[in-house]
Amino acid sequence: MTGSLVIAGLGPGAEALVTPEVTTALAAATDVVGYIPYVARVAPRPGLMLHPSDNRVELDRARAALEMAAAGKRVVVVSSGDPGVFAMASAVFEALEGREDWQALDIRVLPGITAMLAAAAAAGAPLGHDFCCINLSDNLKPWEVIETRLRHAARADFAMAFYNPRSASRPEGFAKALDVLRAECGADRLITFARAVSTPDQRIVTVTLGEALPEMADMRTVVIVGNSATRRVGRFVYSPRSAG
Amino acid sequence: MTGSLVIAGLGPGAEALVTPEVTTALAAATDVVGYIPYVARVAPRPGLMLHPSDNRVELDRARAALEMAAAGKRVVVVSSGDPGVFAMASAVFEALEGREDWQALDIRVLPGITAMLAAAAAAGAPLGHDFCCINLSDNLKPWEVIETRLRHAARADFAMAFYNPRSASRPEGFAKALDVLRAECGADRLITFARAVSTPDQRIVTVTLGEALPEMADMRTVVIVGNSATRRVGRFVYSPRSAG
Repeated sequence: MTGSLVIAGLGPGAEALVTPEVTTALAAATDVVGYIPYVARVAPRPGLMLHPSDNRVELDRARAALEMAAAGKRVVVVSSGDPGVFAMASAVFEALEGREDWQALDIRVLPGITAMLAAAAAAGAPLGHDFCCINLSDNLKPWEVIETRLRHAARADFAMAFYNPRSASRPEGFAKALDVLRAECGADRLITFARAVSTPDQRIVTVTLGEALPEMADMRTVVIVGNSATRRVGRFVYSPRSAG
Repeated sequence: MTGSLVIAGLGPGAEALVTPEVTTALAAATDVVGYIPYVARVAPRPGLMLHPSDNRVELDRARAALEMAAAGKRVVVVSSGDPGVFAMASAVFEALEGREDWQALDIRVLPGITAMLAAAAAAGAPLGHDFCCINLSDNLKPWEVIETRLRHAARADFAMAFYNPRSASRPEGFAKALDVLRAECGADRLITFARAVSTPDQRIVTVTLGEALPEMADMRTVVIVGNSATRRVGRFVYSPRSAG
């Protein structure tokens, strides 16, 4: 029996946004590994072992998945969104360091609809011109790095998508980010808060930076800040194709 | 009969990367509008009118689609990848400007797997940390804007994904971009050329900026430049989750 490891993106929440490629991989899996709420999205069936684990143990989870693949299992590591965007793929590759045995395994990454794309689609097309994507969680980097990136992004006139904008344990980071953005982009710049995108709880709110409050975001929110040309038309927000 | 307009992303090429949401919308359509090669990906059937059009007529195409929706048709505008990333969604919203009648229509954007996500998955996880996404085509913006964005992106230590890196009509732009990147990031920085991602022609090549040649990219190529921490492990390229 030859094992394999697939790192699969489940998309932002809706079943209709799971790619057929991922559905096929899940149907062939012997073992599914991932953070509890993502594993909960996989239907149980005979012959499939589910391995839900807590958050913040990504490297342990990756190693456990690789051990199972090395033992001959067909393992699928599930992430929400896209596994290559602030998710499990990097953790699996980190776990491969120094392990030539694991590097020789059949390992594939299956892309998914990452949250910012679904959020942008729900709002209109705010990422329709050059943009950047920043993880505002400071678990893995100092605030100074985040602030430097925000300032460069503003001066490059990128639209910006923010993941993990605000957690209960460090709510002040997002407030500081809004202060930097107001200073760099002005109070009239549009900002969209997209919560629980593609789920029944979806809520999309667009305001100006002058109106934005830190409390408008939580950990289920993706935040999109427009570039200098981003505008409203009807109920939509979009960034024109030209630099403006 | 109530018309509707759906702007749908077909993903980078493989059928297995088309979301069920998009498949459902196409099955319900009366009319499909888009650039010739994308409309060619939609299977003909009785009751479905296909409207392929040439490239660089995005705004005309958007207006024609809105006219049909206003006349009661169920219109799907197709883009490759994600319609909100350098594709048709922004053109449709531009066409809504000043047209309150069209703004009142049932208009939805359905996200898709954009090329950089499929390219990153095929290479490993080079977009696993903060990144930016730049359209290198200078059809819609001056070179100076592109150069400024490249320099800010490098100084922010973003990984970078480039769309439309090189066309026959303006091949010098990508050569200039490589020069800027070598000056800002050094010769050892990793760069991945991902051509025809998810199709039978897929080809993924990773080299250093010192080894990169403009000819390695064409208009079917997505280019991904790593950040300062991006590294190889086995046959993969990835950006670690921490700032390094």
